[in-house]
Formats: sequence, C-alpha cells, structure tokens
Amino acid sequence: MADSPSCDVKSLSPLQLFERVTEQGEKVRALKAGKAPKDEIDAAVRMLLSLKLSYKTTTGQDYQAGLPPRDLVLINNGTTKEEDEDFVDPWTVQTSNAKGVDYDKLIVRFGSSKIDTDLINRIERAIGQKPHRFLRRGIFFSHRDMDQILNAYENKKSFYLYTGRGPSSQAMHVGHLIPFIFTKWLQEVFDVPLVVQLTDDEKYLWKDLTTEKAYEYARENAKDIIACGFDINKTFIFSDLDYLGTSTGFYKNIVKVQKHVTFNQVKGIFGFTDSDCIGKISFPAIQAAPSFSSSFPQIFNGKENIQCLIPCAIDQDPYFRMTRDVAPRIGQPKPALLHSVFFPALQGAQTKMSASDPNSSIFLTDTPKQIKTKINKHAFSGGRDTIEEHRKYGGNCDVDVSFMYLTFFLEDDDRLEQLKQAYTSGELLTGELKKVLIETLQPLIAAHQERRKQVTDEMVKQFMTPRKLAFEF
Amino acid sequence: MADSPSCDVKSLSPLQLFERVTEQGEKVRALKAGKAPKDEIDAAVRMLLSLKLSYKTTTGQDYQAGLPPRDLVLINNGTTKEEDEDFVDPWTVQTSNAKGVDYDKLIVRFGSSKIDTDLINRIERAIGQKPHRFLRRGIFFSHRDMDQILNAYENKKSFYLYTGRGPSSQAMHVGHLIPFIFTKWLQEVFDVPLVVQLTDDEKYLWKDLTTEKAYEYARENAKDIIACGFDINKTFIFSDLDYLGTSTGFYKNIVKVQKHVTFNQVKGIFGFTDSDCIGKISFPAIQAAPSFSSSFPQIFNGKENIQCLIPCAIDQDPYFRMTRDVAPRIGQPKPALLHSVFFPALQGAQTKMSASDPNSSIFLTDTPKQIKTKINKHAFSGGRDTIEEHRKYGGNCDVDVSFMYLTFFLEDDDRLEQLKQAYTSGELLTGELKKVLIETLQPLIAAHQERRKQVTDEMVKQFMTPRKLAFEF
Repeated sequence: MADSPSCDVKSLSPLQLFERVTEQGEKVRALKAGKAPKDEIDAAVRMLLSLKLSYKTTTGQDYQAGLPPRDLVLINNGTTKEEDEDFVDPWTVQTSNAKGVDYDKLIVRFGSSKIDTDLINRIERAIGQKPHRFLRRGIFFSHRDMDQILNAYENKKSFYLYTGRGPSSQAMHVGHLIPFIFTKWLQEVFDVPLVVQLTDDEKYLWKDLTTEKAYEYARENAKDIIACGFDINKTFIFSDLDYLGTSTGFYKNIVKVQKHVTFNQVKGIFGFTDSDCIGKISFPAIQAAPSFSSSFPQIFNGKENIQCLIPCAIDQDPYFRMTRDVAPRIGQPKPALLHSVFFPALQGAQTKMSASDPNSSIFLTDTPKQIKTKINKHAFSGGRDTIEEHRKYGGNCDVDVSFMYLTFFLEDDDRLEQLKQAYTSGELLTGELKKVLIETLQPLIAAHQERRKQVTDEMVKQFMTPRKLAFEF
Repeated sequence: MADSPSCDVKSLSPLQLFERVTEQGEKVRALKAGKAPKDEIDAAVRMLLSLKLSYKTTTGQDYQAGLPPRDLVLINNGTTKEEDEDFVDPWTVQTSNAKGVDYDKLIVRFGSSKIDTDLINRIERAIGQKPHRFLRRGIFFSHRDMDQILNAYENKKSFYLYTGRGPSSQAMHVGHLIPFIFTKWLQEVFDVPLVVQLTDDEKYLWKDLTTEKAYEYARENAKDIIACGFDINKTFIFSDLDYLGTSTGFYKNIVKVQKHVTFNQVKGIFGFTDSDCIGKISFPAIQAAPSFSSSFPQIFNGKENIQCLIPCAIDQDPYFRMTRDVAPRIGQPKPALLHSVFFPALQGAQTKMSASDPNSSIFLTDTPKQIKTKINKHAFSGGRDTIEEHRKYGGNCDVDVSFMYLTFFLEDDDRLEQLKQAYTSGELLTGELKKVLIETLQPLIAAHQERRKQVTDEMVKQFMTPRKLAFEF
C-alpha cells in the first residue's frame, strides 16, 4: 500500500499536494543518486506518479517543478474535477477503475473516432478476409482517417505502415507484442511496406543509459520484432541513433516538424517543463518524422505523398495529434491511426503492463514454469472469495485479468464466449480460468522463443539496412 | 532617425516600454504578413531590436512576449541599470558607443581571457612566424584555453579547427571573411585539420526559407569560403541538413548534448521563450557537436579526445560556453576558443555589418564602383564638419569606420600608424582616408572574386564530401 498515496492526499490543499510532489521528486532523485535498490526506486517513482496524478486531478493542471499552483482559484472557479479521471500520456497510464481506462471517454477527450461495426465490416469487404480478433474484440478500438486509407486502398493507391518501440530493456513482455501482432496482420492483408522505429535516442534521453546500451537494446528488441514473422522484403526496422546518421530525408523532416511546433505546444501536449532537457523537448519531432514517406527515400524513391497508417497503443496518440497538426503546414499528408487499448498489468487494469515491474509482466523470455507461477500468483482475479460464493454469484470478467489476456490471445471466438459464460455463471473457477490462460500463453511464448532463436545477427543487419523494399513507387 | 527609439523611450516606465515592444512586434508581423517592402520591414525590425535593448537596459531582463515586467521592483530594488550597457547575443549586437562594444567589459561579463602580449609572444615562439595582424591589432582579442592548445602543440599533440557560418543569403559581406581569413592562417601555421559548419538548418528554423533554399545558400557560401584558399586535403566543409544524415557520429553527439542542457539553461543563455519552436530550442546542441572529434569519424578515425580550437566572433561564445559546460559531463574535452571583435557596419560601430541591410555592407560581389560609392556615401566619418575645423582639431580614428576597416585589411603596420597620425593631426582628410580604404578593398575583393570564379561545383562537392583528410589519427 506504500505505493498508493490516495488514502491521505484527498484532504490536502493544492499547495500541500504541490509540496508533497516536490518532496517525493527529491526523494526519487536522492534514491537514484545514492544507487538505492531498484525496488525501492521503483516504488518511490510509482508514488511520485500517483502524487502527480492526484495533483492533476485536484488542480486540473500538470505538476511543474518550481511552479506552485498559484492561479488555481482563477482557473477552476472553486470547482474540483472528477476525482476518478483517467490519466493517459506516453509515460503514464493510470485509472482508479478495475475495468481499466474508460476508452469511450478517451475517444471523446482525444477527438478520435470509434472503430464501429460499419468500419470493421468495410475492412472485411476490402480485404476479403475475417478481421483480426483485435478488431472483432475492440482491442483496436479507435482510429483517425482509417476511411481514407480504405478509400485509397479501394482505388489501388498504396500506403505504408509505421509502428515503433522504445527499447528500454532487453526483456520485452507479451503486451509489447500487441501492436506488432496486429501490424503483421495488416501488412499481410493489405500487402504494404512497413517501417518500425526503435527510439533508442528517446530511451537514452529519458533513462540512465549510454547511447551504446540503448542501441544494443534496440538490436535485441529488433530480434523479438523480427520473430513476429515480418517479411524481410517488405519491412525496414531502424534505430534512430543509427538511421538518423544514414538517411538524407529523415533529418530534413525532423527539422521541418521542429520548426512548426513551439515549446508551449509540447508543454501542453506532453507536460514538459522548463527543467526538462532540450533533447526531450525536441524529441516528439523524431517520432513524428517517420509518418512522412520522404523520411525513407530508399523505400519510396523520394516520394513525399505516400499515405501512412500507424497502428499503436492509444497512449502514443499525443505524438501523432501533433504530427497531424503539423503535416499540412509542411505540405505532407496527415498519417492515419489505429489505436489499441493498453495491455493490463497482471495486478489489474488500473495500469498497463510495465517491463520495469517484473511482477506485473510476463516476459517473452519466461519459461513455462515462470508463466504458470506468475499467472497463478499475480493475475488479478474477478472471482469470489470462496468457492461457495463463486459458485453462487459467479465471477466478474470485466475485472479479471486472466480473462482479459484471453481476449488478446485466444483466437477461437466461441471458446472465449463459453469461458465468459462459464466464469460469469460460477461454473468455471478462477484456477480453471487461469489454467486455460496458462495453456494458451505457454505454447505461444515457446513458439516465439523458437522463432527468435532462428533470428541471426545477419538477419537483424539486413532488416536494419536502409534499402529498397519489394514495392515500386 | 526613425530607427532610433532612444529619444522618447527613456522617460517610459518598464510597463510602458513592454507595451511599446509588444506593439512594435505586432507591427513587424503585420508588415511581413502584408509583404511590405523590404526596407520598411528592416526599419521596423531595427526599431524592434532597439526597443528590446531599451527594455533590457531598463529592466535588466530580456523581453518575453506575454510576460509583462511585473517582478521588476523585487528584482531591481528600484535601481536602474547602466543605460549604455552593450547588448551582445548571437542575433543582435548593439551599443550606444560610437567606438563600438566595450570588449574589456565583455571579457569580464563572458568570463573569457584577454589575448595579451604574453600570449601573442608565445604563439609567435610556437609557430616561429610573425602573428597575424588580427592578433597584433587586437581584432582577435579574447580566448578560452588557448594556452592548453599551445601546450599540446608544443608537445606534438595535434588539435583541429572548427568554425562556421549561418548561410542566410547568397551574398556574403567582407565582415563574414574575418573568421575565415584568420582560420586559414591558423590552419597554415599550425598545419591542422579544419571543419567548417554551414548551419543551413539554423537558417531554415530562424528565417522564412525552405530547406532547399537554405541548402543552396550553404553551397553558394561554401564557394566564398573555399575562395579564401583553404587546403582541400585538410578541410571539410559541411551543411547540417546534408551531413547530419550522412554521419554516424554527429547525431550521437548532438543527442548527448541535448540530454545535458535544459530549457531553463537555453532560456538563460539565448533568451528563448515558450513561444519559440522546439527546433530553435534544441539547435544549440547542433552548433555544439562539431566541437567533439567523434562527430567526424571519417577524419579522426572515431577518436573522441582530439582537442578542438574554435576561432569565431565573440557573439558566438554563448554556444560554446554551453558546450564547455556540457563537455566534461559527456566525457569530452572542452573546446578552446579565439574570439574576434565584430566587423562594424558602414554607418558606425554601434552595430555589426549585416547582410540584411545592403547599405551597411560591402558585399563580396560588389564592383569596384559599388565599393567606392558605398564607402564614400555611407562610411561613418570621424572627421570634422568643415575642412578648416578638421585641419585644426584633427579626426577621430576611434569612431571612423574607414580607419577601422583599414585595421582589418591593411597589412602594413607602419603605413597604418602613419595614416592614424595623419588623420588624428588633421593632415589627412576624410576623403583621403576613404580613398586609401577604397584602394585597399577594391583589389582584395577583385582577387576574391577571381578566386571564387575558379571554384567549380566539383570542388564544392569534394570539400563537402565526408572523407579522410591528410592527417593520421
């Protein structure tokens, strides 16, 4: 419970809260400087994030170091915001709701569009195949301009896919696979080029890492991405630290984006403060630039007008809202987006799975035994306290993490529906549901490990070499 | 006189001044938006700069849009700053003193060291040659760590030279040549590699230019730089827009600098505001990175510890103060510096020669006739109002622009001293002094034009190709 500041902070004034956040920030810095054990630092960071969230909920403003909430009365007119509002940005996902983030609210807040039955049906007609389970089950739930992509596709105009990953550690967890599994499917059904950005520069800027280590993580992560089965003739994977120095088009697009975004804007979008380093402040342009085909002259023959489609988790949307705002001002088409929900932590959907918390994560390197133990020990259950109560009242799939994971990984719709009914009715016990999940995940991860073993350094090098792909532009 | 706001602003309160700056800023924007004649815009911009200077002098703070000087009383304790303080940053040089900026004060303010007779003598001993007239005459007047460079040189350890230029227009003026003339001499006497950065990205960010146009200016300016006589086997000239995408080391150094400099710092050093684009905010790292030899793996074989010496005008020092602050934190040696004074505008040493004001500048493309006319018409004279008075009281070389220019370009020390005495005594008239300057500059510029004609596109391409130079590292 040390992680949760919610018990005592509700009674604090905005200024007191401000002071608590400042103190906690100093504590984190002191722990890091003193090279305290990782658990201790992680716990302090979680507390800090929680306090920042409380501060934002109370004041309606992002915490800014050195800037006490003096204008609060003027801004809020004495009213307080909803206490249970979800917090979503590229670094933090937090909600007080065990069902997870309210995605319908997020669509309204972000101004995106819901992926509704009509759109799913249209995709099905366009590709002549059953849509991916991530679409059927609302895991990819929101979009921007997907209709334009389909218009173009139906008129035989090509587009390309862009997704990415911040390679912060060697170990990727199952949640990291979601955008790649879906992207691979999109690549197959639409037959289009794919670029995958590994933001090793971002990780260098945000973490206590050397550039060499960040690049090493990028190469290691590339192996896991390649193991998802991408076509080497249609896929270019790149590390920013590496590709920026080898592309004639990438930096030009970065500097164009950087000219058209002010500090005020990134402050508003990402919550940067005056104490942030200038690398963080200008980084959003680097995540924006691959949305423009001229960043890849070797693939697109220098063409600037190829439409881009970005499958990603919804927390990355701030980068691409910014990109879409800039695009017309630099004469480029706006990228289209497909947004996924977050992959929940084992402990519950209040936050997403995080590689920095080993107990919250099932890693792609875990053994069958580790997978079993973690799920049995940590996966938050929607079941009742006793078998008797469970039989009588049934379990709650809306908050049960094992059931949530099955919606991600169990392909068979009928089986999933049966499990849901059996668990809800109380017929299926938590242990039995967990067993289904374990038996689903173990072979999936084992197969991934097997494919990853086949990925040679030579293959990584090939995927990461700027080159022409199997398309004409 | 429309340019000078000094007559009426002295009586204004800080808040009234703030409002005047804001109004003038809006006027400039309106003129630009309405595509007003260039003269009109230039005049309005000069007025704006002057008002900003008055604002800074009065309040001790940089003008920040939208941020009225509310804390003034608290900060200044009711005292006002010296009214005639010089203003020097990479974009603006202004002083109320006709003799030009007070460079001794600037040395104290910037915390650099004076190039004194001892240092000049030591350079002379080290190279076994007479020091360049720019050293003999205090045109390069300030340094950082030049003693370390000489220590290294005396111990047969190599270093390299780094200088640069912001290619904002095709036409370079004679003032732009100063760092290059001196750098060429340094390269010859020390026999070291030279890198020349053309910050076309900076010009794209600051001006209303396309990246293509900025790159074109970079290539055109490279011709003028090459025409100074640099050795093609010892010199690498690069455009940021081009080289950043072709160097494996440059971006890595940029991102390292960007990690170690906060927005607060660049705000303090360069006066950036929240309304500035993130490109400007992160740009200082791009000017910093060539100070580290690992930005040029092709020249230095990837070595990180080669000492760098930067000859530049003193207004560029803020970039390198920042660089020197960061260097030890990223495991790199601090660059050493040699600072020059500004090259005065024809109208007087209150401001430096600026290519955006044709009347203030003698361009490298000017014909002998244009040179003659500009000097006769615009060069500010230190002479008396009538010939009689001049004969009686003599002229003032300290404010006479023609004499100042001769200190830059007339090689013969004795001749210069004779001219000074004759002008000061009244024996030499302004017209006669101007004639000496015209006859000095005309052949210099004609010879430059002749050499520039010999510079082929192929040579530019060679100078700008990343490659090994004639040195082993």
